[in-house]
Amino acid sequence: MSIKYTNIVDGLPASVPFVGPEAQERTLNQVFKARIGANESVFGPSLKAVMAMQKEIIKTWQYGDPENYDLINALATKHKVSPKNIVVGEGIDGLLGYLVRLIIQKGDNVVTTDGAYPTFNYHVNGYGGCLHKVPFKNDTEDLENLLNKVIETSAKILYVSNPNNPMGTINTPKAIEKLIENLPKSTLLCLDEAYSDFLPTNLIPNISINQSNVIRMRTFSKAYGMAGLRVGYAIGEQNIILNFEKIRNHFGMCRVSQVGALAALDDNIFINDVIQKVGSARKRISDIALSNNCKFVNSYTNFIAIDCLKDDVFAKKVLENLIKKRIFVRMPYSFPQNRCIRVTVGLDKDIDLFEKYFPIALKES
Amino acid sequence: MSIKYTNIVDGLPASVPFVGPEAQERTLNQVFKARIGANESVFGPSLKAVMAMQKEIIKTWQYGDPENYDLINALATKHKVSPKNIVVGEGIDGLLGYLVRLIIQKGDNVVTTDGAYPTFNYHVNGYGGCLHKVPFKNDTEDLENLLNKVIETSAKILYVSNPNNPMGTINTPKAIEKLIENLPKSTLLCLDEAYSDFLPTNLIPNISINQSNVIRMRTFSKAYGMAGLRVGYAIGEQNIILNFEKIRNHFGMCRVSQVGALAALDDNIFINDVIQKVGSARKRISDIALSNNCKFVNSYTNFIAIDCLKDDVFAKKVLENLIKKRIFVRMPYSFPQNRCIRVTVGLDKDIDLFEKYFPIALKES
Repeated sequence: MSIKYTNIVDGLPASVPFVGPEAQERTLNQVFKARIGANESVFGPSLKAVMAMQKEIIKTWQYGDPENYDLINALATKHKVSPKNIVVGEGIDGLLGYLVRLIIQKGDNVVTTDGAYPTFNYHVNGYGGCLHKVPFKNDTEDLENLLNKVIETSAKILYVSNPNNPMGTINTPKAIEKLIENLPKSTLLCLDEAYSDFLPTNLIPNISINQSNVIRMRTFSKAYGMAGLRVGYAIGEQNIILNFEKIRNHFGMCRVSQVGALAALDDNIFINDVIQKVGSARKRISDIALSNNCKFVNSYTNFIAIDCLKDDVFAKKVLENLIKKRIFVRMPYSFPQNRCIRVTVGLDKDIDLFEKYFPIALKES
Repeated sequence: MSIKYTNIVDGLPASVPFVGPEAQERTLNQVFKARIGANESVFGPSLKAVMAMQKEIIKTWQYGDPENYDLINALATKHKVSPKNIVVGEGIDGLLGYLVRLIIQKGDNVVTTDGAYPTFNYHVNGYGGCLHKVPFKNDTEDLENLLNKVIETSAKILYVSNPNNPMGTINTPKAIEKLIENLPKSTLLCLDEAYSDFLPTNLIPNISINQSNVIRMRTFSKAYGMAGLRVGYAIGEQNIILNFEKIRNHFGMCRVSQVGALAALDDNIFINDVIQKVGSARKRISDIALSNNCKFVNSYTNFIAIDCLKDDVFAKKVLENLIKKRIFVRMPYSFPQNRCIRVTVGLDKDIDLFEKYFPIALKES
């Protein structure tokens, strides 16, 4: 007799959703010159957040507030909802794990887009759920067919990211609102809005906070430039939010992260500046794509999918050539999106390097 | 039709394992003068760690290394094991959650001590496990009866903390080693050694790293003074450790926490100094107990259970009186340990306050 794992665990591979850039650096035995692959924000956190966190470091002997009270209240004010409509967690990754755990039992159906966020799929598999994947349509999440698949499979969760990763496209607010209108009440729409801080408000769907089958995921990892601090939050109807209290790791948040996120919320000038910088950098990367006879997918995020106009084998070669030149980028992994490479916006010096090596990477592929 | 949660989730209360001191402060509308209730380390993190973290803050736009490579390698060196014997996670709380998820299915039996760590119980309930609790014996975890209960229930996990919380007592290395010898190979011993950094090495059990049914939990939250950074790790045989890869939140660690923990490992002088300060403070608190005609339980940790020599109603009154005086302390919650209050060691100014208000709290109870 030996230790017996659960049936679900026995069926899981010991795999990682992503290999991190540090692991690649160790393999290459070289440090990346440009880190523009993980949709992190090179513009860093707001100076207000940096100062608040540096001050808080000496208080890290104290556990963080398990209720995330101050942060939740500030977020509630920002989103004009009750604090009871918000749960804070260890990044969207952590919150997606909790959400799947709340709802998915072995064999339950879940619908997502083929090639959408792999960490969501990792959690669904991890709790024994059954994934049904719908292809992108013109590099955009196909809401109509996603809904059809939900109805066909009686799915318990539908995952939609808007803007989506890895293509950076969006659906219109009207299209999302229509999806919600037609969605069975027994299906929860998990709307991953990690990149929505880059959107103008008129492109963000208007969803009643009392909608009983929608939860929206937000993060400080993207526009706020705080990926390494692991602060995400979900906005939803009070009963959904309350259920997280049953299972979440109540003392899971770092104290310095709570303080940093709170201070960051207080710095709108910074966020507006980031959005402007992201726009300029995106324009520059798009121009580089065009001047190398490639196309680009119109993006609403801090990354751009560059269409290399050949197949996945070619795109993978381009990616590998860039990695060899110490430029960290990634690529979509489903067909036909994997004809592209995905480049996160960088500082001028990062884009300079990309501009220099992209033509070489193409030529040598 | 509405959103359907899992059967397990439907049966769970929306409860917290602990109410945090911040929530108590909000209720009291006052800030605690002495925070000596959560077994945090008032001596804070090492200056080396503080400096490393303050420097890292500006790099928090980057995700942490999902492999925790540097930290795991440093820990492997420290413990003279392979990096494959170590998994790093979001505090012991996070790791306990993963461990329970790996092994416990609905109805599986788990054995622990009545009054031991509630967050472990929270996770067991959260995954549908069935808890069997064995009383303390002379305020010490009763290894003999724990083993009997394991055999009686064919338990899949046995939780033992050593030193234990909330009493601060230990079992001898020999007793722990004997327990392991007699434990069924199908039962995993989860040995929570959160407080073992306070022990002299001759009081730490010697367990083969290839023992297939033991996992040891360690943390940076106690002696290292970094509770708010959420860094725990588990040491065990490689197959157990590998299983965590299947389900853990790979990008769950904060970058600043990884860097801080790594730097802290490099500062033995600091840890030795903390251990000495904890010893002195413990002595002072014990003396205060005696001079107030109370007893104390001999502790191997950074807290002391003070025996108020009456019942739980009395102890609870003493606790409440201290809280009113803005001294944050806690108490055990199972009989007969709940005749005590639990006081974490503090700075001199904290203990001065305790010394001043403890007699009043007793008198008014």
